[in-house]
Amino acid sequence: MKKAEILVLGAGYGGIMTTLHLQKMLASEEASITLVNKHPYHYQTTLLHENAAGTAHQDQNRVNIEEVIDTKRVTFIQDEVTTILTEKKQVLLKNGRTLSYDYLVVALGFEPATFGIPGLKEHSFCIRSINEARKIREHIQCTFARYHHEKRDEMLTIVVGGAGFTGIEFVGELVERVPVLCKEFDIDPQKVRIINVEAGPTILPGFAPELVEYAYNYLKSRGVEFYLKSMLKACHSDGVTIAQGEQEEIIKADTVVWTGGVQGNSLVSQSGFPTQRGRVEVRKDLRAPHDDHTFVIGDCSVLYDQESGRPYPPSAQVTIQQAETCANNIKALLKGEALQDIKIEIKGTVASLGSEEAIGVVFGKMLVGKKAVLMKKIIDNRYLFMLGGLGLLLKKGKLKLF
Amino acid sequence: MKKAEILVLGAGYGGIMTTLHLQKMLASEEASITLVNKHPYHYQTTLLHENAAGTAHQDQNRVNIEEVIDTKRVTFIQDEVTTILTEKKQVLLKNGRTLSYDYLVVALGFEPATFGIPGLKEHSFCIRSINEARKIREHIQCTFARYHHEKRDEMLTIVVGGAGFTGIEFVGELVERVPVLCKEFDIDPQKVRIINVEAGPTILPGFAPELVEYAYNYLKSRGVEFYLKSMLKACHSDGVTIAQGEQEEIIKADTVVWTGGVQGNSLVSQSGFPTQRGRVEVRKDLRAPHDDHTFVIGDCSVLYDQESGRPYPPSAQVTIQQAETCANNIKALLKGEALQDIKIEIKGTVASLGSEEAIGVVFGKMLVGKKAVLMKKIIDNRYLFMLGGLGLLLKKGKLKLF
Repeated sequence: MKKAEILVLGAGYGGIMTTLHLQKMLASEEASITLVNKHPYHYQTTLLHENAAGTAHQDQNRVNIEEVIDTKRVTFIQDEVTTILTEKKQVLLKNGRTLSYDYLVVALGFEPATFGIPGLKEHSFCIRSINEARKIREHIQCTFARYHHEKRDEMLTIVVGGAGFTGIEFVGELVERVPVLCKEFDIDPQKVRIINVEAGPTILPGFAPELVEYAYNYLKSRGVEFYLKSMLKACHSDGVTIAQGEQEEIIKADTVVWTGGVQGNSLVSQSGFPTQRGRVEVRKDLRAPHDDHTFVIGDCSVLYDQESGRPYPPSAQVTIQQAETCANNIKALLKGEALQDIKIEIKGTVASLGSEEAIGVVFGKMLVGKKAVLMKKIIDNRYLFMLGGLGLLLKKGKLKLF
Repeated sequence: MKKAEILVLGAGYGGIMTTLHLQKMLASEEASITLVNKHPYHYQTTLLHENAAGTAHQDQNRVNIEEVIDTKRVTFIQDEVTTILTEKKQVLLKNGRTLSYDYLVVALGFEPATFGIPGLKEHSFCIRSINEARKIREHIQCTFARYHHEKRDEMLTIVVGGAGFTGIEFVGELVERVPVLCKEFDIDPQKVRIINVEAGPTILPGFAPELVEYAYNYLKSRGVEFYLKSMLKACHSDGVTIAQGEQEEIIKADTVVWTGGVQGNSLVSQSGFPTQRGRVEVRKDLRAPHDDHTFVIGDCSVLYDQESGRPYPPSAQVTIQQAETCANNIKALLKGEALQDIKIEIKGTVASLGSEEAIGVVFGKMLVGKKAVLMKKIIDNRYLFMLGGLGLLLKKGKLKLF
């Protein structure tokens, strides 16, 4: 019997966890496993807002892939995927290599959705990768350093578009970071503005109103200016135009960070998969429609909750559960067994507001303040443990041991 | 008898040391002393290249003025001098205040001399202040962070114009800094270029040929590219044009730092003092010509060595000696005693090449390597001791106590 070739594209939450499950489940004579990723490291996308604000160093939130996979069982290739040829069962890489597969896992993550807002692509940052988060951090620092020479107040204004998870968590880090930046660059903190622009009527949609209010009041007390029910109409090299109803306003700002929308990696639709906003609506066994050999998980997929009829949010929690089902189903295919349907269990969701405040719901219970902060740490630490065991948890975990 | 008003402009090496001598020498009933400086802190200009490279933090090389002066004896005003009216014996400040004086000490430091080289003023940095050194550090970091997105090789090229003291000491720090930057920003160190451009035939003019060779070989072995006998013809937004004889070459670089020349603060000539390259040729008692009430010291002054007929270099060492004579002569004027002539004693000069290498001459003896590094530390520490005693030395000194 020919050994099956399993190819995993992307080493985000979905790709790395699928790979780890597969290397545990399958004997080396059953299948060869190949993992392709652009960078030599895996990072925690849900923590990138810390790296972007500069409150945590990128090395805290990333880990070398070869440190967590078993390199005797998994071949890791650092390269970029350029095309997926599903009919030929081949994947082309940027450096010219062609990889063949029997089973494919597409876990290529997200890219920003700019909804055609003029100038947004050119003039705003997006918290999407270690490279871009670090660029945001350095951009803010450099702008603060230049302030003494150019003295334009907008150099000290940071506009964050979108009041969802990433936008609000980023704003939460910024309120902690600004005093440190002001000390470092000899700047009066009163001159710094953090502005959050959101089209909807509240921040953190999906959370209970009392939690939303708690978060809103906390951030407002720390000086964040909220523009709710405000559309970001355009982004310019020196700021943004926003509209509240008929009324338009220009806010000058040297830093604009867009967190208002994401879509699946455009490579997926370019490779011919049917998508909505870049996402493939997968079957219950996580396979792409009409393709029994390709699984799509994470931000490139959309999965409907049968009960509510609404899609699950594209979160790390959902993706990590998909990874397990995906690995189980690949094993089932190899053994000729029946595939299982995905079952998503939302255990809880916590949004941090800097390192000292958070809000969330865990097993149906609402949490704010210290309890929510603790729960967030437990969630993050639990992931590190799943990924790399106790060693990684001790190395990268958010622990106060003394 | 009316109490004399002594006004000291600038809190660099010259201004701060003059102030400290005066506050020791004069009783409060003899004179009131006022010190004016743009920033609330004094900094060690000769160490700014470390802050610019990012090898030392700016707080290591600056000290709050009110921490070292006796605020009961000296009035410190944080403001910028806009005009000196010598006939009225008044100084105008940016915030609108007018200060009157009986004796004036002009110690307003240097500014870059760009010799009319096109684009240099607009597109290059100058290691002249804490603010600008910090801006250089942040600019380099930000450019390295952006490299992953724009992938232009010139983003990793740093051109340093001038191979005098500051230029070479800065290059020495850069060779140490680059590996750290490359690790921080995930960049291949092979891609980084440090280029030194010098019009003269050697680096570090004024040092003995064997010391020059030592420095040159060391920096070359660390990857520095030297363009000697090369004129910087123009500076552009994306690099420089240099000429070796008839041959012109364009070097693309996102960072250009000009260290090729300084001149006295232009305020001095604007205020009507006779100057050459912004410097007042002072009398032997350090007073300006035809003005018995104004002393000019440091980079705004030029002082000729009677033996050699050449001007003393505008160094911290010379300035600190001027400060002492200046204070003595102000006291002499108050007491109606004879003024003393300045006597400059060049004890030694050490140029650092990063933290691990240096060259220098101390009491006529040539030093290289560890001995020179140690001597440089002793010089820097000695200054801190003079400035703020043991407390400041322990706080900011370059000490390895353990």
